[in-house]
Amino acid sequence: MKTREACLEADRLDPLAPLKQEFFLPEGVIYLDGNSLGVQPKAAVARAGEVLNQEWAVGLIRSWNTANWFELPRRLGNKLGRLLGAGDDEVVVTDTTSLNIFKALAAALRIQQADHPERRVIVSERDNFPTDLYMIEGMIDLLQQGYELRLIDDELPLERALRDDVAVLLLSHVNYRTGALYDMAAVTGQAHRHGVLTIWDLAHSAGAVPVNLRAAEADFAVGCTYKYLNGGPGSPAFIWVAERHQDRFWQPLSGWWGHNRPFDMATAYEPAHGIRRFLCGTQPILSMSLVECGLDVALKADMAAVRAKSVALTELFIELVEERCGHHPLTLITPRDAARRGSHASFRHPNGFAVMQALIARGVIGDYREPEVLRFGITPLYLGYADIWDAVETLRDILDRGSWDRAEFCRRSAVT
Amino acid sequence: MKTREACLEADRLDPLAPLKQEFFLPEGVIYLDGNSLGVQPKAAVARAGEVLNQEWAVGLIRSWNTANWFELPRRLGNKLGRLLGAGDDEVVVTDTTSLNIFKALAAALRIQQADHPERRVIVSERDNFPTDLYMIEGMIDLLQQGYELRLIDDELPLERALRDDVAVLLLSHVNYRTGALYDMAAVTGQAHRHGVLTIWDLAHSAGAVPVNLRAAEADFAVGCTYKYLNGGPGSPAFIWVAERHQDRFWQPLSGWWGHNRPFDMATAYEPAHGIRRFLCGTQPILSMSLVECGLDVALKADMAAVRAKSVALTELFIELVEERCGHHPLTLITPRDAARRGSHASFRHPNGFAVMQALIARGVIGDYREPEVLRFGITPLYLGYADIWDAVETLRDILDRGSWDRAEFCRRSAVT
Repeated sequence: MKTREACLEADRLDPLAPLKQEFFLPEGVIYLDGNSLGVQPKAAVARAGEVLNQEWAVGLIRSWNTANWFELPRRLGNKLGRLLGAGDDEVVVTDTTSLNIFKALAAALRIQQADHPERRVIVSERDNFPTDLYMIEGMIDLLQQGYELRLIDDELPLERALRDDVAVLLLSHVNYRTGALYDMAAVTGQAHRHGVLTIWDLAHSAGAVPVNLRAAEADFAVGCTYKYLNGGPGSPAFIWVAERHQDRFWQPLSGWWGHNRPFDMATAYEPAHGIRRFLCGTQPILSMSLVECGLDVALKADMAAVRAKSVALTELFIELVEERCGHHPLTLITPRDAARRGSHASFRHPNGFAVMQALIARGVIGDYREPEVLRFGITPLYLGYADIWDAVETLRDILDRGSWDRAEFCRRSAVT
Repeated sequence: MKTREACLEADRLDPLAPLKQEFFLPEGVIYLDGNSLGVQPKAAVARAGEVLNQEWAVGLIRSWNTANWFELPRRLGNKLGRLLGAGDDEVVVTDTTSLNIFKALAAALRIQQADHPERRVIVSERDNFPTDLYMIEGMIDLLQQGYELRLIDDELPLERALRDDVAVLLLSHVNYRTGALYDMAAVTGQAHRHGVLTIWDLAHSAGAVPVNLRAAEADFAVGCTYKYLNGGPGSPAFIWVAERHQDRFWQPLSGWWGHNRPFDMATAYEPAHGIRRFLCGTQPILSMSLVECGLDVALKADMAAVRAKSVALTELFIELVEERCGHHPLTLITPRDAARRGSHASFRHPNGFAVMQALIARGVIGDYREPEVLRFGITPLYLGYADIWDAVETLRDILDRGSWDRAEFCRRSAVT
């Protein structure tokens, strides 16, 4: 597509274009940061009103039964599971991604401890999103049982890291900075051949790329609902466990919501059967309720169509940037092969931070990641081809004029 | 007060009565369950609208800076701290009570491990709210370091449980079932004399009874915001640590929100200075934002006046029940001495569950707790003396008619 008109024509032919109507999009904004915080489904306002004005204000305590608040984690988990290739009652929406990593890690280590107590290494990636590493570090420090963290990077590729001392491999399906995508089935198979259990962090893939946890024979997965799933700022995260581990898994954040009979008020913890034992304490009902609005839109779309459009938009974005801004010092750090990337594209620029601030000031909202990285999220449910065209034109204009250079910008980042 | 007229007169003279206007109270309801889920501050609807329509829908990712979302846990914590006798930057609002117990327990055990590694017992109370016990059990199971849980009860009073092998004492300030209140300063002193660190669960006391964590020389405290603080269903909890432990404390749920420089995306975890290191993952912004509405009302009231009214209403409730329903098999299980109870009163009745269902059907909402316990929360910010009168009259009418006996009720409890 070499012209804006061609982009508009592609928008007219786009089968997913009607879904844009399901979202509130602020005027004058091209939003390329849905991989950090998704936009608002229009249904969210009415749903919030229901929770506030009926369920809380009038129903009060009765809403635990009448509005089925207690069932929300499982009910939403079942909807979400359909996007992830999970079975019924294999997913719950609860807590934060960080906490769910802790639970999955504890569960995986416990299984290995029983079968292969000599395995004391947890493998992750140096370039993983930091909280994944921090949670592993916290667990190792807490346990004081000689566990260690081994990080794969340019010097230590995965195949050399997966030795017989490894208990667990924790990877992000899509890298938060570069957008690089792992082949989940292949890597899981590789891990299993070494006797290693896998935990997949789907924060940057759930709702953006096809995920089939069962087909990949993954062991555990966690992820967040506020990016491509449009659940709202800081909306609760999710956790999945493979059915084959359901009888064995255990987790130490054993709050009363995970008890088999929470209202018996028994003294001894007795885990619920199935995935509900991954629950811990009382959940933020208002924030959690809105997750459903985003899921309902996502479930209207065919994931293959979403992926096809994501690939087409990302290709277009990369092509246009390289063609139209090619005389500026921009370096693509996202894989060129569509099969190896998720749904965002990142370029380094020596003045990345200032350029991104100038873009945002012009209504093209992406984000900045250290070092020097301009990150652009491509969300097929509400972006079109002409949006990509216009975004690149704005970038070109800013770079050509050097206008990012003229202002002072406070060097303060937003949240991934 | 022997008549409804006397109660109405007391309401007219009540200096806290105007605060009732700050809350939405459904018509035809006398709400005696604010110790389970508080009512809705009227300001919450406007605040939710702001978060939904401005901060999320329009501000999108920019709101992490412009609406200061990242600072919410600390900002709300500082407001809440004024109700708890805490210093600035000693409290954060975050996660759930269960998770905050885990953090405080890990921190306390780590301190003891350094100073007194031989102390391997955690003392709590058999009648404590179950999640407190479950979290201790989960920690013990996870650590596999020979820790054990010792429960005080009728047979093992606190003074005999606090031996030299004890590391940590975890108690609820107010018991969720009986309403019994500990003297925090006295018990903390007793624990300290035995070299034991204290964790106080303030779920049933924050906003209901005077709490002065600094004066009591407590070590750690946690609690929830959705009961007497009216933060909304499942609104985030809080955690406090004494200033003297701030340099030493450590906790294993070390997510990126607790990192000293979260946006550097460093590989190694480096805890923030002060209480912020008790944060873990991204918080549910909508649910958290509404906590402020409840706090703002609570801060308008003088806590001594709140306590005085709580005592007066609870006295009145107990007196009236015993006078007017005394011919029915009701047994008070709450301490008669006002100095030894929090802000709710509980009676056993052999048909407790059915009686409570009948009360709820008549608009008098308390709750039921195993075994046979009718629990009535007394919330001075929005209840008056005539409400108490009317509630007791409804109870008397139901008991006199035996009308609780005539219907079949599903035996399903609501959430504490």
